Amino acid sequence: MEVEVNIRKLQDSLEEFAVERDWNKFHTPKNLAAALTVEASELLEIFQWMTDEDSLRISDSEKDMGLIVEELADVQIYLLRLCDKLKIDLEAAVEAKIAKNALKYPIHLSKGNAVKYNRREE
Amino acid sequence: MEVEVNIRKLQDSLEEFAVERDWNKFHTPKNLAAALTVEASELLEIFQWMTDEDSLRISDSEKDMGLIVEELADVQIYLLRLCDKLKIDLEAAVEAKIAKNALKYPIHLSKGNAVKYNRREE
Amino acid sequence: MEVEVNIRKLQDSLEEFAVERDWNKFHTPKNLAAALTVEASELLEIFQWMTDEDSLRISDSEKDMGLIVEELADVQIYLLRLCDKLKIDLEAAVEAKIAKNALKYPIHLSKGNAVKYNRREE
Amino acid sequence: MEVEVNIRKLQDSLEEFAVERDWNKFHTPKNLAAALTVEASELLEIFQWMTDEDSLRISDSEKDMGLIVEELADVQIYLLRLCDKLKIDLEAAVEAKIAKNALKYPIHLSKGNAVKYNRREE
Repeated sequence: MEVEVNIRKLQDSLEEFAVERDWNKFHTPKNLAAALTVEASELLEIFQWMTDEDSLRISDSEKDMGLIVEELADVQIYLLRLCDKLKIDLEAAVEAKIAKNALKYPIHLSKGNAVKYNRREE
Repeated sequence: MEVEVNIRKLQDSLEEFAVERDWNKFHTPKNLAAALTVEASELLEIFQWMTDEDSLRISDSEKDMGLIVEELADVQIYLLRLCDKLKIDLEAAVEAKIAKNALKYPIHLSKGNAVKYNRREE
Repeated sequence: MEVEVNIRKLQDSLEEFAVERDWNKFHTPKNLAAALTVEASELLEIFQWMTDEDSLRISDSEKDMGLIVEELADVQIYLLRLCDKLKIDLEAAVEAKIAKNALKYPIHLSKGNAVKYNRREE
Repeated sequence: MEVEVNIRKLQDSLEEFAVERDWNKFHTPKNLAAALTVEASELLEIFQWMTDEDSLRISDSEKDMGLIVEELADVQIYLLRLCDKLKIDLEAAVEAKIAKNALKYPIHLSKGNAVKYNRREE
């Protein structure tokens, strides 16, 4: 797997794609957020009737994996578009969120349970 | 904005985070796909009552932008987790999808309209 | 438009449908909640690139309305299934929520703005 | 559980609620579809880290059931609003969809599997 991803290059390809098709008028932040949700749900659809065990063995199915790769790519594409339109540095955003989550979910309170921090009974 | 993102480093941080909290048992592909959809919807919620014009001016609101950066990061985090669990090369997936979309949406048929390729009347 | 809807009769039809196909094993509350989200997103997909004005004129398009009616029905179907499985009285739930919303969104604070009650600056 | 639900009465309450708060300007079909998706995801969030077994035992948790009832009500509320705005007869839509599903999923092809009709290998 590639280690370094050139975000800017991907965003430039996507912008060019939109310009060529005169699609920027559709790509408002609101519409991109809606499209992102729709694509995430298309990914979820692949898993919706599976048991947890089925989902753990999904790599065995080449057909399912092909569908998953495409839906994941769609989610990533709209995420890149939205960050480009809003001038958001995605890597910095992820690093900041990981740091914040470490504060919200200290190990001694979170070990082995996934209770949302604001529903935790302390 | 950073140009090169080190995907592997982010994925390793996220894996470490999960291991320390014994959360890998929750992180089945199915559950990560559900979490991804939930986070995408939390992003959409910020925009849901806005007009297109409001959404185009959203960068003016520091408060909204703060919320958006966090939700975008959450979506990216679950996307990275899912790709790590399923050994998917996200950059290759995005590049392949852009190439496929160029075939599905040729410029002369798509210019100025966003009709889904399988609903197009040819 | 029909005024009285016989919820029980619809739920019985849906249960019979599931029993005949041996689908109850798939219809866990979690899976039904996932399916509900997926169907809601399919509805949203129809609107995702529309302007607000386009969406206000959607009744003019027989084709779009046909798609919308089907997606709305799918959402209602999974909602009915989930309420049946969890023994929830949907009408009572809606009435209770309207009453609760009236407290959360008093007219003098909410008139003309859609700020979520927990983000309101009082 | 109530058998007959007076859809019209609920829709009239919701319309009155919107009029009093001058919220009809926000309630375009597109925005209502987005809100519906957001609420469906909030329901899914309750289940996202549960195993299937956890989700089958959810009725045991009064706290979770309280959250679920509220989120289900929100989904139903936006569904009723959207049908009201678009003059869609929800009961007729559900009955038509059940009939259509019976054709798409004949018992002998669907028994015990949940393969989507358009992915079935016949």
